[in-house]
Amino acid sequence: MAISSWKDKILFTPGPLTTSRTVKQAMLRDLGSRDTEFIGAVRDIRSRLLTLGNASEEEYTTILQQGSGTFGLESVIASTIPADGKLLVAVNGAYGHRVVKMAQMLSIPVTCLEFAEDTPVDPATMAEAIAADPAITHVSVTHCETTTGIMNPLAALGQVAHDAGKVLIVDAMSCFGALATDIPACHIDYLVSSANKCVEGVPGFSFIIARRARLMETRGWSRSLTMDLLAQYEGLEGNGQFRFTPPTCSLLAFHQALVELEEEGGVPAREARYRNNFQVLLDGMAAMGFKPYLKPEVMGHIITTYHYPEDAKFNFATFYDLLNEDGYVIYPGKLTQAECFRLGNIGRITECDCRDLLAAIARAVETMGVTLV
Amino acid sequence: MAISSWKDKILFTPGPLTTSRTVKQAMLRDLGSRDTEFIGAVRDIRSRLLTLGNASEEEYTTILQQGSGTFGLESVIASTIPADGKLLVAVNGAYGHRVVKMAQMLSIPVTCLEFAEDTPVDPATMAEAIAADPAITHVSVTHCETTTGIMNPLAALGQVAHDAGKVLIVDAMSCFGALATDIPACHIDYLVSSANKCVEGVPGFSFIIARRARLMETRGWSRSLTMDLLAQYEGLEGNGQFRFTPPTCSLLAFHQALVELEEEGGVPAREARYRNNFQVLLDGMAAMGFKPYLKPEVMGHIITTYHYPEDAKFNFATFYDLLNEDGYVIYPGKLTQAECFRLGNIGRITECDCRDLLAAIARAVETMGVTLV
Repeated sequence: MAISSWKDKILFTPGPLTTSRTVKQAMLRDLGSRDTEFIGAVRDIRSRLLTLGNASEEEYTTILQQGSGTFGLESVIASTIPADGKLLVAVNGAYGHRVVKMAQMLSIPVTCLEFAEDTPVDPATMAEAIAADPAITHVSVTHCETTTGIMNPLAALGQVAHDAGKVLIVDAMSCFGALATDIPACHIDYLVSSANKCVEGVPGFSFIIARRARLMETRGWSRSLTMDLLAQYEGLEGNGQFRFTPPTCSLLAFHQALVELEEEGGVPAREARYRNNFQVLLDGMAAMGFKPYLKPEVMGHIITTYHYPEDAKFNFATFYDLLNEDGYVIYPGKLTQAECFRLGNIGRITECDCRDLLAAIARAVETMGVTLV
Repeated sequence: MAISSWKDKILFTPGPLTTSRTVKQAMLRDLGSRDTEFIGAVRDIRSRLLTLGNASEEEYTTILQQGSGTFGLESVIASTIPADGKLLVAVNGAYGHRVVKMAQMLSIPVTCLEFAEDTPVDPATMAEAIAADPAITHVSVTHCETTTGIMNPLAALGQVAHDAGKVLIVDAMSCFGALATDIPACHIDYLVSSANKCVEGVPGFSFIIARRARLMETRGWSRSLTMDLLAQYEGLEGNGQFRFTPPTCSLLAFHQALVELEEEGGVPAREARYRNNFQVLLDGMAAMGFKPYLKPEVMGHIITTYHYPEDAKFNFATFYDLLNEDGYVIYPGKLTQAECFRLGNIGRITECDCRDLLAAIARAVETMGVTLV
């Protein structure tokens, strides 16, 4: 019998994450999707998410959408850009490239403004690119690019889009809930994140916080039935229901996760815990001789990328398996240039779990006979 | 405190359904989406679904897709019909109309071949419609139309599509697993169903059983990134993973549901239980004086539509609430012509639950002072 039957491994990944026992237990229910209790939970989720983003009910609304975060993002791209619109995507990693590909497959004109993977998106360069092409109507940026863990300057990028009069779409998948995000102050029109990230729910749906006035302009623009954000909004506002069968259990878990986020002390307390996880891992890895890929000043506290050790005895598959056998799941790299792996700092994990992981990493390095300089 | 905090209501709905305790308990895990145990569960799910449809690994493959069944269906429509293709949709209810709307929003040429809601799709009429328009390349039919519960003649319709050399798409959402479905014998190219139907899992994803040779022809045809069925297939075949974060908990529950389907005695035993639920409800409702909408010879055993009683004292909202307070959830009607409600026969419910519902309906009728003739 596998060790997994005794105890779940601790996930140092960008999601699915380790969640609390009580979040998972919230799924032990069979609720009909038209049940008043279920509809009440959906309403409360939508309202709590607005509060997390400092967005008012008057100006903003939350739309919940089935599928992973990428489905939520494609909903925005597929249904809120008009036929004569053009999208500029600021890219410094795989998730930015994914938005470019989405637009291409939807036959939406798109410009890819690319930066190096270790460099934040530069607001001045983005302003120039927008000014150079008057056809651009929409701008998409990634808040924390999970490819490296780099944090892009959201407020400054939002100001650029606002000054240029463009609609701003933000992929805040991996960091919403892990740091203060002032949606109105950052001039965000559509922010997308998902259930299994920093709110610490289980996967199954994404959410979009949308500026209501923008959304109302999009009637007839959707290129897809399921991806139609305005229709989904109208369903949720009308009778409180999803248009199509909702992932009821994931939603119940997420509702409990939002309650537990509040109990923990809200976003400031969660940010402090994640920053501490991040720092404990960063310091411990540095002490062993591992080198982070990013410069300290651009690192986020969500996920951290480390170079492979130079010692030829290091083998990532072996390293991964040794940690896995010890009960710790880490994440492979996703860079185009450098050989790296990643350690996530998010989920229901604490400093103690991080110290346990560091000890397991030290054992794995020793087992492999790897020398770190 | 609501009664729901004591015990879940029993769901006489088309899904989400009442599921077993052990299916829900399978979700009490945090598994990474790259975990070998999780990947093994996904592989086993895909293989077991083929077996349920009498489809061989050589000829067919199963693709799992995030989101509700409608997302799975749109994946097929959006990515397996070429730019010069044309779809004929046989319609006798709301779910057929939904496929027409999908095609329209995707700018795919589509013909709606409409039948009355109380009439099965007629194979000869469908053959004529196909013959009359050589532009048609793909044909879509609904096996059990949940709008009424009517069962369409799948084998005969499949033969028509096959004889005409058309690609056949089957929406088997509400009945796959509830009766023998021989996918190769019915000449099905793409069959779509979802997790929270007759396999008795919880919602979160859909599945598509696809003829591999057909699927391999579709490269470059997808109009969407997330809806790209071939790309999703290649991800699952390549490293065993979903392209985008999978609904891990729903998948673990579904795996357990498939094991329990086998333990129950497979599809024949499940069909027998559902047919018995159906008959017990039909007989009990008839004994009270309720009239079913469909003629007996076209009824399926998934969900049954009943006319509102003629007595003006009958009020559906009151009826629903009275049953709900007693712990039974029924389903409203969805017909364009007649005032009806529906009782589902599927999910982890038995004859005993059906008799309890009948008793509760008798009490509700008495409370409302309704006379049934």
